[in-house]
Amino acid sequence: MNNTFTYKVYYEDTDSGGVVYYANYLKFLERARSDMFYANGVSQINLAKHNIFFVVRKCEIEYFSSAKLEDILHITCKIEQITKVAVLFAQEIKCENKLLATAKVKVVSVTKSYNDFKPLSIPQDVLLILAKNT
Amino acid sequence: MNNTFTYKVYYEDTDSGGVVYYANYLKFLERARSDMFYANGVSQINLAKHNIFFVVRKCEIEYFSSAKLEDILHITCKIEQITKVAVLFAQEIKCENKLLATAKVKVVSVTKSYNDFKPLSIPQDVLLILAKNT
Amino acid sequence: MNNTFTYKVYYEDTDSGGVVYYANYLKFLERARSDMFYANGVSQINLAKHNIFFVVRKCEIEYFSSAKLEDILHITCKIEQITKVAVLFAQEIKCENKLLATAKVKVVSVTKSYNDFKPLSIPQDVLLILAKNT
Amino acid sequence: MNNTFTYKVYYEDTDSGGVVYYANYLKFLERARSDMFYANGVSQINLAKHNIFFVVRKCEIEYFSSAKLEDILHITCKIEQITKVAVLFAQEIKCENKLLATAKVKVVSVTKSYNDFKPLSIPQDVLLILAKNT
Repeated sequence: MNNTFTYKVYYEDTDSGGVVYYANYLKFLERARSDMFYANGVSQINLAKHNIFFVVRKCEIEYFSSAKLEDILHITCKIEQITKVAVLFAQEIKCENKLLATAKVKVVSVTKSYNDFKPLSIPQDVLLILAKNT
Repeated sequence: MNNTFTYKVYYEDTDSGGVVYYANYLKFLERARSDMFYANGVSQINLAKHNIFFVVRKCEIEYFSSAKLEDILHITCKIEQITKVAVLFAQEIKCENKLLATAKVKVVSVTKSYNDFKPLSIPQDVLLILAKNT
Repeated sequence: MNNTFTYKVYYEDTDSGGVVYYANYLKFLERARSDMFYANGVSQINLAKHNIFFVVRKCEIEYFSSAKLEDILHITCKIEQITKVAVLFAQEIKCENKLLATAKVKVVSVTKSYNDFKPLSIPQDVLLILAKNT
Repeated sequence: MNNTFTYKVYYEDTDSGGVVYYANYLKFLERARSDMFYANGVSQINLAKHNIFFVVRKCEIEYFSSAKLEDILHITCKIEQITKVAVLFAQEIKCENKLLATAKVKVVSVTKSYNDFKPLSIPQDVLLILAKNT
């Protein structure tokens, strides 16, 4: 399944080069992953209440063209691979069918223990939900 | 006592108008308040471990001139008033002696209870430290 | 006229206190002002092409309660006063009918000259559009 | 040559997971690259005045451990490769000798033409400066 979410570019996202600041594309990527989780019934607020967090372990992003103020960005969110502890997302950022950036994002399931994160198997129900989106 | 802290403007702080984004001045103000606390021996990490947080209750900021990429900002941090639960800061943002912005920031002491903040008296030792900086 | 715009809280907006970072509420306020402009046919991209910018001259914000991850925020955007060079907005941030914050934001029209902003009368057509929203 | 720059973690950098938000590590990486340029006499303000910008073409970041509020981060900035149009940086983020993240960042030189970026050879004097840091 391929999920697409749409966000607008505001002044907060841009920098004085006149385009979206390179780190802020990662915010749009994360919004899409969160919205995909949420659309499938996975609330990160609920996960946090059970001391479960998804954190990014690795992120590779390639930038082809820049987003600008007032642009409408379409972010796709495809699950490429799932293991017991990790989810690999392949994501794209498009504006009016122009590909602006592609990213591979590896997210892992962790739990907090003494203010540090420890690896944790992804809860079975979340795993089943994510598997349906592969 | 008047405390001044110095920070540099990077691309992340600016927007496509070519100057620092209006909300980001509040980040510099907060860095200065945090650094003032820290310089006086008040660690917010330690406060958080004791379930004590300082949160902003009110903020008034007036902008006179803009900060730009690579500018060196000097942020002053003066305590105008202290009560048992609140601290009122008067702050200034300067660049090369030019006044860019002034702010009044009211900060209150709170504790988390069922994921909500409740008012809390400022701890006595913190109060004494802050009083020395009035 | 009273305009309301809706935005969601993501991880990017929160801080380690567990709630939305105090400066980030100003981002939501600005999104609403931009979306109100845009909904009325005023594109800030177009204004920038004509070397016209709206910048914040003053901002007063009062925080009553905190927004959290996954909260849906409703931002109102009311024009209280218009002069030839300035617009005064009264804004509210609500979540499920709970008032989280109120703000007064004074925005002025400027033009760039040698990398500095100079005051500029608000263009007549923009003024007429804004007047309809008073 | 290996350049290291030091920055502190403030509330603005963290998220409600209790650690630095994953996109914000890219801000620290960029501060270090900018400060390395600046320390070598390359001002990005001056480059921008000549319509020259360095933009990120590709970024790969791997996260091993999390940074927290009040952490002091040491960011290294090593140039691995230089071509006529691109610079490849290898960067590390450490806290108290603990490796938190590593990154490879490919930066290219561009010029603005009709609000779009076009590739541009890196200016000869900048190239010489960067070569000294390889």
